[in-house]
Amino acid sequence: MLKDIQSQFDDRNLAIDKVGIKGIKYPIILRDKRKGSQHTIATINMFVKLPHNFKGTHMSRFVEILNKYRENISISSFKEILEEMRIRLNSEEAHFDMEFTYFLEKEAPVSKQTSLMDYLCRFSGNVSDEKMDFILSVTVPVISVCPCSKEISAYGAHNQRSYVTISVRYNRMVWIEDLIEIAEKSGSSPIFSLLKREDEKFITECSYDNPVFVEDIVRNAAQYLLEDDRIDWFEVSSENFESIHNHSAFASITIDKKKK
Amino acid sequence: MLKDIQSQFDDRNLAIDKVGIKGIKYPIILRDKRKGSQHTIATINMFVKLPHNFKGTHMSRFVEILNKYRENISISSFKEILEEMRIRLNSEEAHFDMEFTYFLEKEAPVSKQTSLMDYLCRFSGNVSDEKMDFILSVTVPVISVCPCSKEISAYGAHNQRSYVTISVRYNRMVWIEDLIEIAEKSGSSPIFSLLKREDEKFITECSYDNPVFVEDIVRNAAQYLLEDDRIDWFEVSSENFESIHNHSAFASITIDKKKK
Amino acid sequence: MLKDIQSQFDDRNLAIDKVGIKGIKYPIILRDKRKGSQHTIATINMFVKLPHNFKGTHMSRFVEILNKYRENISISSFKEILEEMRIRLNSEEAHFDMEFTYFLEKEAPVSKQTSLMDYLCRFSGNVSDEKMDFILSVTVPVISVCPCSKEISAYGAHNQRSYVTISVRYNRMVWIEDLIEIAEKSGSSPIFSLLKREDEKFITECSYDNPVFVEDIVRNAAQYLLEDDRIDWFEVSSENFESIHNHSAFASITIDKKKK
Amino acid sequence: MLKDIQSQFDDRNLAIDKVGIKGIKYPIILRDKRKGSQHTIATINMFVKLPHNFKGTHMSRFVEILNKYRENISISSFKEILEEMRIRLNSEEAHFDMEFTYFLEKEAPVSKQTSLMDYLCRFSGNVSDEKMDFILSVTVPVISVCPCSKEISAYGAHNQRSYVTISVRYNRMVWIEDLIEIAEKSGSSPIFSLLKREDEKFITECSYDNPVFVEDIVRNAAQYLLEDDRIDWFEVSSENFESIHNHSAFASITIDKKKK
Repeated sequence: MLKDIQSQFDDRNLAIDKVGIKGIKYPIILRDKRKGSQHTIATINMFVKLPHNFKGTHMSRFVEILNKYRENISISSFKEILEEMRIRLNSEEAHFDMEFTYFLEKEAPVSKQTSLMDYLCRFSGNVSDEKMDFILSVTVPVISVCPCSKEISAYGAHNQRSYVTISVRYNRMVWIEDLIEIAEKSGSSPIFSLLKREDEKFITECSYDNPVFVEDIVRNAAQYLLEDDRIDWFEVSSENFESIHNHSAFASITIDKKKK
Repeated sequence: MLKDIQSQFDDRNLAIDKVGIKGIKYPIILRDKRKGSQHTIATINMFVKLPHNFKGTHMSRFVEILNKYRENISISSFKEILEEMRIRLNSEEAHFDMEFTYFLEKEAPVSKQTSLMDYLCRFSGNVSDEKMDFILSVTVPVISVCPCSKEISAYGAHNQRSYVTISVRYNRMVWIEDLIEIAEKSGSSPIFSLLKREDEKFITECSYDNPVFVEDIVRNAAQYLLEDDRIDWFEVSSENFESIHNHSAFASITIDKKKK
Repeated sequence: MLKDIQSQFDDRNLAIDKVGIKGIKYPIILRDKRKGSQHTIATINMFVKLPHNFKGTHMSRFVEILNKYRENISISSFKEILEEMRIRLNSEEAHFDMEFTYFLEKEAPVSKQTSLMDYLCRFSGNVSDEKMDFILSVTVPVISVCPCSKEISAYGAHNQRSYVTISVRYNRMVWIEDLIEIAEKSGSSPIFSLLKREDEKFITECSYDNPVFVEDIVRNAAQYLLEDDRIDWFEVSSENFESIHNHSAFASITIDKKKK
Repeated sequence: MLKDIQSQFDDRNLAIDKVGIKGIKYPIILRDKRKGSQHTIATINMFVKLPHNFKGTHMSRFVEILNKYRENISISSFKEILEEMRIRLNSEEAHFDMEFTYFLEKEAPVSKQTSLMDYLCRFSGNVSDEKMDFILSVTVPVISVCPCSKEISAYGAHNQRSYVTISVRYNRMVWIEDLIEIAEKSGSSPIFSLLKREDEKFITECSYDNPVFVEDIVRNAAQYLLEDDRIDWFEVSSENFESIHNHSAFASITIDKKKK
């Protein structure tokens, strides 16, 4: 039999906080109560805590767990996956996070033509001592019109694509769609993959009527997130890819409601 | 003595078009007739053609050549570097290309405050049978205001950052600065790192007065490049990071004046 | 009715080689004769040629075409998509390319455990004057053991992950799987997502028995591609992420068999 | 005079944790006690805390501060920059971080030929209530030979490039060079840009004699960092770009010595 080097004793007396696999791409099927399911591709990190007395972890077991669950991933199966990681890897703590593109069918505001918008999402889960910590994140592109540029200029106003990222810990189910809605209400206007001329007119005027600084975007979102009782903790940030500069404007607010 | 595996005979009868090192980062000093010199960091590819009868090339020699020239890189030293590559690597053909950030001090249009703008540049050289081919490229960020959005909307117009890339072959010296100037004249307005309120007003109004489609940007640049007798061949493209979509609009024109 | 600015006359007398949308992410279903279908996410560019007399193209039509075909994309539907682009955009030429991750179930060499490997693929199609040009590309990770390091060292040999990219034009159907097989035979050994200890032993020994320079990888692949009568043209390259350097070794061979 | 929208009153009662500029590229001159100075290019983020009663911050002032200090950046000037940010932006807290490539001249182990190696570094500083927090980070590429593969195989052993990242808070000056040395001692062998055959033999044998798991790399580094009295807190991680997989192995250890 081949020697199991990883299980050998290690005398350096140093536990390893996280050890595992990073950046593995896997096709997954997301279970979703509202629409059934969505096929996507996740980039996944899976780590456990390694006690000080073991030389190494068993990397292939992470992929075996992934194989088992990949067609049935949902926020509710996350705890089960994390528990299985702890048991199979003999560890007190397990961490699983994955980033994936999530598509939503959207209707253009006037023409009502539909198209798909892509949102970058992240599930991040941690289990230690029976306690599970879960963070849901989504990054939402919006348009932002600069209030200063509008105010001081005789006509026009610079505007740009902004990426609003909302991360939440919650006590009752929050959907990806809920966070997308909050982010889109916080910018000058939502954006779309497919717009006809009447839609372009609508979005141009609507966003000009609703100018926001990067500071306004995160404050608007923070207000919605504060009012939502399901949410215990949130972090909201916005990166505006300024059309008048070659760098971004950025703002972020983090609030732990339990500590408020 | 250690065996030289690379110099062994290869009987597969297949020449290799390009072989060498890719993606090496090196600090370089660019010689520049107008300002003396500029320190920057280049990401470099160096390749030669390998005749069919040799098993391999000698990778360390590429880095030795880089060491020799790194404090004295200019368009005019490119031919010398390429010739040295051919000789040291016993090859008919040599290729050297490098990508680097180039900074230019710019004055804001009204306040006249100065700041530095970064431009991504590329030198790409090839020597074969005594003939040298050299392409100079630069990518320039500008602002573009959409003419359709302006025309159909009661007020406002969507705009965004656009990246204009111009590549040229020339018969008389063309400066990076010349290509930056052409690109900046082809969009709705140049952009800057540092703008005071009076500058922001100026750029907002000036770009609203000068709306351009992605098609207009490349046509404007093409006109300037056609009129410039120093330029024999060019490719101009623009990628507009649309503020109303999560994707880009793109256009490109390539013209070989000698074939016209 | 809203004015159609794009259809206005342009007097600059400059046709635009390519104009359209770039970098749109869309979920697609790939049709595949052998396995039915595979869900994946594509990053897509769609361009047409714009005649000199039109001011602009109609960007929303590209997304409408994408909506229509996205659940039925295959090499065989590519020509239909390109023809529809030409008709709807009133253009002589149309270009469509997409990059996507393709997954294959693979068996580990000894334990026979299965897992999924990801490969980056690209379909690139162009239609002009009824003539269609189509290029299929795939990038395949393999392990490469250095023959020089093995020969000159008393024991061991440096090795690393290499990315082999094969692009082909063909006269009879070539599968993505065929190109993956060629790439994997050209390195020191294929690689896998899931390996048990007996597999790791097998791959370590097998790759040590089969050392290859970056030059050998592209020559090995070129030999297979030359022998394959279905293939008219190919380009093969390999980038080796050298474990003893912080840069890559690279080689490429391009052969047009019709010109040979 | 143009209205100052940013200074207007905001009644949402929400302070903003961080607001400022993100991703600006600027050429800087790093002051270094041992070698004088090094020119490099930094990617910079500058943020301040915005009190709840102000509508916005003044973005151009960040760039003005950058202009003032860019030729004189060092760990010791960081506090001064942060204090100037607090004063000019009227803020309790200021944050400045920058990422840059740092080059070191290295001698190959046997041939003694010199070349330059690139390391990605990060300075991250925060000032609030007169208290400054500073973190120094560096990412160091090394080679890692797998102990399991070596043990179970008749010959050979898979190995790969690994990126070791060390971040520290300290009470007495720690140099970038000190952290590079620790990282390089923690892998199987350091790596170089330029190696002659005798060096390649040396590194192959030396790394085979010194196999390390990703777990060993972080434990080795943690031991050196624990023994170093200058260091109060550290985080060390290693990402191994496995040559037998298309994903990475990863491990990390964080220790706050003051809490031990």
